[in-house]
Amino acid sequence: MAIPLSIQWINGQLIILDQQKLPHETEYIALNTIEDVYDAIVTLKVRGAPAIGITAAYGLALAVQRHDTETLEVFHHYVKKDAVYLGSSRPTAVNLVWALGRLQQSIGSAQTVAAAKAQILAEAKRIHEEDEKACRTIGGHALDLLEGRSRVMTICNAGSIATAKYGTALAPFHLGKELGREFEVYACETRPVFQGARLTVWELQQAGVDVTLITDSMAAHTIGAKGIEAIIVGADRIAANGDTANKIGTLNLAILAAAYNIPFYVAAPVSTFDLQIPDGKNIPIEERSAEEITHSAGQPIAPNGTKVFNPVFDVTPAQYITAIITEKGIIHPDYERNIIDVFTTVSGKGEKS
Amino acid sequence: MAIPLSIQWINGQLIILDQQKLPHETEYIALNTIEDVYDAIVTLKVRGAPAIGITAAYGLALAVQRHDTETLEVFHHYVKKDAVYLGSSRPTAVNLVWALGRLQQSIGSAQTVAAAKAQILAEAKRIHEEDEKACRTIGGHALDLLEGRSRVMTICNAGSIATAKYGTALAPFHLGKELGREFEVYACETRPVFQGARLTVWELQQAGVDVTLITDSMAAHTIGAKGIEAIIVGADRIAANGDTANKIGTLNLAILAAAYNIPFYVAAPVSTFDLQIPDGKNIPIEERSAEEITHSAGQPIAPNGTKVFNPVFDVTPAQYITAIITEKGIIHPDYERNIIDVFTTVSGKGEKS
Repeated sequence: MAIPLSIQWINGQLIILDQQKLPHETEYIALNTIEDVYDAIVTLKVRGAPAIGITAAYGLALAVQRHDTETLEVFHHYVKKDAVYLGSSRPTAVNLVWALGRLQQSIGSAQTVAAAKAQILAEAKRIHEEDEKACRTIGGHALDLLEGRSRVMTICNAGSIATAKYGTALAPFHLGKELGREFEVYACETRPVFQGARLTVWELQQAGVDVTLITDSMAAHTIGAKGIEAIIVGADRIAANGDTANKIGTLNLAILAAAYNIPFYVAAPVSTFDLQIPDGKNIPIEERSAEEITHSAGQPIAPNGTKVFNPVFDVTPAQYITAIITEKGIIHPDYERNIIDVFTTVSGKGEKS
Repeated sequence: MAIPLSIQWINGQLIILDQQKLPHETEYIALNTIEDVYDAIVTLKVRGAPAIGITAAYGLALAVQRHDTETLEVFHHYVKKDAVYLGSSRPTAVNLVWALGRLQQSIGSAQTVAAAKAQILAEAKRIHEEDEKACRTIGGHALDLLEGRSRVMTICNAGSIATAKYGTALAPFHLGKELGREFEVYACETRPVFQGARLTVWELQQAGVDVTLITDSMAAHTIGAKGIEAIIVGADRIAANGDTANKIGTLNLAILAAAYNIPFYVAAPVSTFDLQIPDGKNIPIEERSAEEITHSAGQPIAPNGTKVFNPVFDVTPAQYITAIITEKGIIHPDYERNIIDVFTTVSGKGEKS
């Protein structure tokens, strides 16, 4: 048993886990061209903001190795064109644009095309390694917070396969396994797209972590009946005041945690904070197609023409969040003050309170 | 548009709605023999405690018409045998046993077999009519409580098709439609078996009530985003202190209602109270097969061998319940005192507080 990885760079080849085939088939595929990478992102074979960023970075590295020019100016032109192409695969993915921008910046001072090619690949690897390290650090902080607690609930898949390794919300379970600390994880199935049932259950099983699947509707009863001691979730976007947008269903759990007086933790890298957004009211909530709800596993479950409301995210007010766990430390309330602190503190290490 | 009915007695024939085929096919089938009725109950073509009781009552009435004897003693023997057979179709259904017992009692003083036969059918019709009347009364009380509120959330299907007509939790929407009061109903899909998506959406659409489908995970966000003003649910069993067992997911909603400071109503006939049970801790919670969760619409959505927790009901503590709406009146806290009152008051009319 091992923590599953969504992205590997092996002998100059980019290998990804095809997450569309999970949990029924575990298939790793090689992406050999920039078109392969573009396609893998568009068709959601790779998912999770960090994992998409890393994949795109390797994709750009792959593509630029093949450009046949000795002229730096021409090479820069090719790189830019490739980056624009890859960046269009998932226009709303912030990490994607960020990673591609970082690779382009990395060759600013390269003196030869060969050096630039090497530099781009090195930078892609660095992004990959940094993300793994950040997730491992988040896992360590989460383990500290979860000291003495072993029965934990989560939703969606803020897991290893959404990042370089370890994940964010799932990081304490993976790192705990490495360090000999056992958890009993309760995974909410995460309607409508079942990321909990399809991905989190699979990922934790692969890693040998004890995991039990429940429907989202069973959360309250399970907290009481099974003695859940904490809830931990990932985040899609965190406002300056700590309000957190995450997969729909997260807010239900936050309110239940408060009712049962158990801690509710958000685990996310600092790149998730959007300090331009003062609070959750200003986070736009995307809505998706009715079919995601009227159909399940491809089968219709509701009458034709059913009216639905299908928001992708909800926003958990900061008041429900016990702590936000980042690679720069644990952030406690008062969030308005302490989030700014993380961004202005040079060392950024240890616990903020 | 009309309120759909699950059971009709037309020209001496028992016609039921095949709920297994909903929402894709609306098929009414005639049950001509006691075996047909037994099969319809076993295969869940008819569901909902009151509807099962009514169907079984007509089933017994159907069966006994055919017994060819002039001897009352022999006839009683046949009736008993038929009742035992029908009662075994769903041994845990309290209403089933109650309805069959009532029919048997109704012929205690019959002087001839012909009179007994007529009496049994008349009693079945009475049970049917009484349930419709009780549900309509519940609807009226619920309309009083919902005065000035139009955006209401519900879960599962405590609907017309689970009763003679109107339903319990859905009664105010149907009765409101008849009286010209419009509601916007938000139906939680009700995992794992999708009674909300499959049945409640269909039923309310048939009746011309505005209904929007959401996943259970969207409840909190929807309450805030859509301005939900009340939540109303049915009940499977209510303890002497008001603690209420109902479809899994109900407790989530009760806690959310408290967090959003909106009323949470339970609508149920007085037959739902089990005064032998002092509180919710003493209500046993049945668990069902893992497949209900690992599969959706027949398709596997989780890895093979996934460990699941699949409780059918949860218990909402009385403290979360704003009022319990019965055909004998509205029961407010203090429930321990006021529930007993309903059972000991002769008139039983009007509001208890």
